[in-house]
Amino acid sequence: MAEEPGSELAPWGAGVNLFWEDFEVGRVFQLGSHLITAEEILEFGRRFDPQPYHADEELARSSVFKGLIASGWHSASLWMRLYYDSVLSRAASLGSPGADDIAWLKPVRPGDVLSGSVEVISARPSASRPDRGLVQLRGEMVDQTGAVKMRLTAWGLFARRPTASAS
Amino acid sequence: MAEEPGSELAPWGAGVNLFWEDFEVGRVFQLGSHLITAEEILEFGRRFDPQPYHADEELARSSVFKGLIASGWHSASLWMRLYYDSVLSRAASLGSPGADDIAWLKPVRPGDVLSGSVEVISARPSASRPDRGLVQLRGEMVDQTGAVKMRLTAWGLFARRPTASAS
Repeated sequence: MAEEPGSELAPWGAGVNLFWEDFEVGRVFQLGSHLITAEEILEFGRRFDPQPYHADEELARSSVFKGLIASGWHSASLWMRLYYDSVLSRAASLGSPGADDIAWLKPVRPGDVLSGSVEVISARPSASRPDRGLVQLRGEMVDQTGAVKMRLTAWGLFARRPTASAS
Repeated sequence: MAEEPGSELAPWGAGVNLFWEDFEVGRVFQLGSHLITAEEILEFGRRFDPQPYHADEELARSSVFKGLIASGWHSASLWMRLYYDSVLSRAASLGSPGADDIAWLKPVRPGDVLSGSVEVISARPSASRPDRGLVQLRGEMVDQTGAVKMRLTAWGLFARRPTASAS
């Protein structure tokens, strides 16, 4: 998802209403929730992270986790989907240079209802390109009991709001 | 993938030959490679990260990336699979508390052959549990031209090698 320098910004569709200026520090987006099933955990685990506690219900029971848990990359990907549905799908997104501080705090188990959120923790205009800016986001996933399962910090690159004179 | 405190370590199978002691600082594991296809990029993108440049070939062409690119979470998950196949599948793994410093340095495009590696950058015994230790790993994915596409740092928790007297 690295930025491709030198490319021109595409015109933004009518549904796009979040530009760099809209990601004000302290703004929180609630992202909705997702009920995770054993089938999904096994499917992702077998494909990308076939450790016994992610990919085999029987072996998972005798593992250190005493049952199936989601791969941390699965949890991160589910957060991404919630973030897309609520925020990125209507944002002038130009990709992401990276993420940091992903903490898998508690195991995600079948039947967990994962609710996502994003808070803007910093923002700055691009030093080299006046048409875009960076935003630092703290993402969280909490379960149905309110326990925080995962926390991450990620960067987003967004186009600045076009000025009237630019059209 | 967080550790479940208080659980007992399962007996390790005959195929397990990497314990905490084997992750010496500076040790490098080459993880093999994976040819990524447009189909895989679209499948992952539509499921977890449906931004136009991950989920729609037509829209991707008119995007800032001028074509389809893999979601950064897809690249991370593919690295995980290579890491599992070469290392974790034969390691006394107890999960991971987290990752940090994920950098998506260059777009991953269909046809790229991604080769993974892992280097041990630090290691320490668990402060609270004498039977396990933490390892900090730097993972990389390079393409067929040698360009580094992704770099990340992740933590792994591993059981210490059982002593003969423990059996």
